Amino acid sequence: MIQEAKPWEVLKECIDTEAIDDLKAYLSQLNAEDIAASVSHLSEEQRLKLLSLLTPEEAAELIDDIPEVQAVRLIEEMDSKEAAAIIAELPSDDQADFLGEIPEENAEAIMSEMQTEEAESIRELIQYDDDSAGGLMITEFLSFEEETSVEEVVRDLQSNADKYEKYHLQYIYVTHQGQFSGVLNMRTLLLSRSTVKLSQIVLRNAFTVKDNDTLEELIRFFDTNDFYGVPVIDERLQLKGVILRKDLREAQAEQENVEHLETQGIVGGEELRTMPVLLRARRRLSWLSVNILLNIAAASVIAVYQDTLSAVIALAVFLPIISDMSGCSGNQAVAVSLRELSLGVVRPFEVARVWIQEISVGLLNGLVLGILIGTAAWLWQGNFYLGLVVGGALTINTLVAVSLGGTIPLILKRMNVDPALASGPILTTVTDMFGFFLALTFAGLALANL
Amino acid sequence: MIQEAKPWEVLKECIDTEAIDDLKAYLSQLNAEDIAASVSHLSEEQRLKLLSLLTPEEAAELIDDIPEVQAVRLIEEMDSKEAAAIIAELPSDDQADFLGEIPEENAEAIMSEMQTEEAESIRELIQYDDDSAGGLMITEFLSFEEETSVEEVVRDLQSNADKYEKYHLQYIYVTHQGQFSGVLNMRTLLLSRSTVKLSQIVLRNAFTVKDNDTLEELIRFFDTNDFYGVPVIDERLQLKGVILRKDLREAQAEQENVEHLETQGIVGGEELRTMPVLLRARRRLSWLSVNILLNIAAASVIAVYQDTLSAVIALAVFLPIISDMSGCSGNQAVAVSLRELSLGVVRPFEVARVWIQEISVGLLNGLVLGILIGTAAWLWQGNFYLGLVVGGALTINTLVAVSLGGTIPLILKRMNVDPALASGPILTTVTDMFGFFLALTFAGLALANL
Repeated sequence: MIQEAKPWEVLKECIDTEAIDDLKAYLSQLNAEDIAASVSHLSEEQRLKLLSLLTPEEAAELIDDIPEVQAVRLIEEMDSKEAAAIIAELPSDDQADFLGEIPEENAEAIMSEMQTEEAESIRELIQYDDDSAGGLMITEFLSFEEETSVEEVVRDLQSNADKYEKYHLQYIYVTHQGQFSGVLNMRTLLLSRSTVKLSQIVLRNAFTVKDNDTLEELIRFFDTNDFYGVPVIDERLQLKGVILRKDLREAQAEQENVEHLETQGIVGGEELRTMPVLLRARRRLSWLSVNILLNIAAASVIAVYQDTLSAVIALAVFLPIISDMSGCSGNQAVAVSLRELSLGVVRPFEVARVWIQEISVGLLNGLVLGILIGTAAWLWQGNFYLGLVVGGALTINTLVAVSLGGTIPLILKRMNVDPALASGPILTTVTDMFGFFLALTFAGLALANL
Repeated sequence: MIQEAKPWEVLKECIDTEAIDDLKAYLSQLNAEDIAASVSHLSEEQRLKLLSLLTPEEAAELIDDIPEVQAVRLIEEMDSKEAAAIIAELPSDDQADFLGEIPEENAEAIMSEMQTEEAESIRELIQYDDDSAGGLMITEFLSFEEETSVEEVVRDLQSNADKYEKYHLQYIYVTHQGQFSGVLNMRTLLLSRSTVKLSQIVLRNAFTVKDNDTLEELIRFFDTNDFYGVPVIDERLQLKGVILRKDLREAQAEQENVEHLETQGIVGGEELRTMPVLLRARRRLSWLSVNILLNIAAASVIAVYQDTLSAVIALAVFLPIISDMSGCSGNQAVAVSLRELSLGVVRPFEVARVWIQEISVGLLNGLVLGILIGTAAWLWQGNFYLGLVVGGALTINTLVAVSLGGTIPLILKRMNVDPALASGPILTTVTDMFGFFLALTFAGLALANL
């Protein structure tokens, strides 16, 4: 079986031999996944060489295809002049995204190599929160003042056909002294007489969003209204940009990914193994170190009951089981809460309702698991009371775990704390403490029989 | 501060008093989140009553706004005739989705109340995998045979304006005896003379996808090509439907959510607390019961070393810490692997590369954590050797954990096993066994000094 060469091997060869035509031909038939994989297999030297062999336009296309973390890294590695040329070819929201992610001095160095006007508009966009309307909008849209005639608009479209090729073209936005007036779709424009002024055919009272609207507010807006794109205005009602539904969806999907990675302890919500080792280690460690302190606190409960443990050494086998299983049950509840919060099906204040819905499941599963582990303990040591102690501790702790797991995300959300990173550690620490306490206390009470 | 009535309270009142106009007015200004939240707060009785007060068209709109699990449940609760009327108003892909999720007898009962032709086409769609092109495509598109003239097309559009209002209208698809020929955009149609036949202006050699293409293949296709919608053909080259980019994105985002929920042990990839308690308990228990058996297997390592443990009872405090911290480190690696796999940045065969990238981080963090825990043990018991045993065990086990965590998802993927559900349990079981083994073996070796 002939093994097909891997994309990065082909690219490496093209880069090393500077076979520009082969390189471009090969790149153009790769999909985004292969491009991202290839870039992560190249050394820094090869990456820079690859970008230098492409035109700024082609380089920009490549950068658009790879994960943002990778793209930002590439831009940081390049020299400012080269980076500026490539960034100039990117759409406005990407420009702001990338330049907003790198240290300010580097960003400024790059922007000083760009056209003043473009750099200014990027600086404006960078001000916005990544997840706000301002951070998600694009500035490549067509807008004309009300007094413009249809003829003048058509002439502008025709003479700027190249520039407008990458623009959002479903609507034309009409302004009055920069303030948003209304929208106009292409069909109406083409079917109107050439002397007609835009003010006569514009659709006023169109929906708009504010530039500082949050991602949550935008999602709610687009859920209620079936628009493809919506104009963004600032507090002076000036038209600043357009938000496209597809960009919002992307931002929403990204946020869900970030949340997932954070629940697993990936601080910053993203990690690619091509990131520097020290950076990866440090970010993971920031979460691990908090966890180990919490773990020590929880395990100190065992230390308090060392005498009981010496008397019933078999218990030491079950403590990790109780701890782990409670953590599992609790994390299931956390996952459902995070999911329901993001769907909007539950509100942060509904702590009691969620608790009731969780303890029913917690009781059922706690009983089953308690009976399972109790039976295992009984069979192993031939001591019914050991089974009772261990099983009883797991049953009760499962109830505790699902109660906490279900409600902690809501409580954190009410306190405006991001529930993704914090819910897990808080849950496992408290359930560990409780689990150890229950098992050792029960054992202490039944000491005579064990 | 006046507290605003919650959406479901207002709805409950409208439903109970059958104030239909108020109900509809209120519903129309609620967004999807509020609707979903409200539906989950209504009793089954109130839900059925709500749907009966709305027209089938309005009910279909409401059903489109709520999470699929909720919608499916609503449909199951209704009587077949009512359900049929509402489902008839849904877009084709939703029809197939919902009817595909309920037991076959119920689905047949509903379809028997629908128009034969519509029921037939739904039955066809249900055959497809949810995540295939066939499962994601819509059948509301315009297609005409090649021999049709522009005039006839325009006449058809005008006389069916109502029906086509909800159709995908960017392109007209042209067929030859049902087989896909090419596409035609609206502009070309409107600018052609009325006697021209479609065969003369159709764009042939258009891209297509097969009806059984998987979600992965579709994502790769849409990544490479910038289309808004693509025709779907079967193996006889017959045009079956159209896939829209936005529907693909939605499917992709949904898949990522399912994956996340599965890593947390939510079997089935979705759980809403309005689902029946027994169902929720059973699904969660299916994962928990596997976990508890694995936990017992891992903890049996401790049982083997009970004598060592009796001699160094302080060790019992650190076993849960070593187990938990190794699990944390390992799960970070799992999360990154799942992420990189989904981005396509890493391929399942790259096990060695991932391993090397993980042990560097594992070594750094393992050392830090080992020193931390070792110092804690030393300070607590005043015994340096205890610190060495515990710290050494944690350091080495961190290396084991990240190695496994990074590579297990790739290995599972190569074996065509879904890595989301299985990676976590496999990881924690093996790292628990290793961690207990390391700590107790080291303690046994250093017994004289402890």
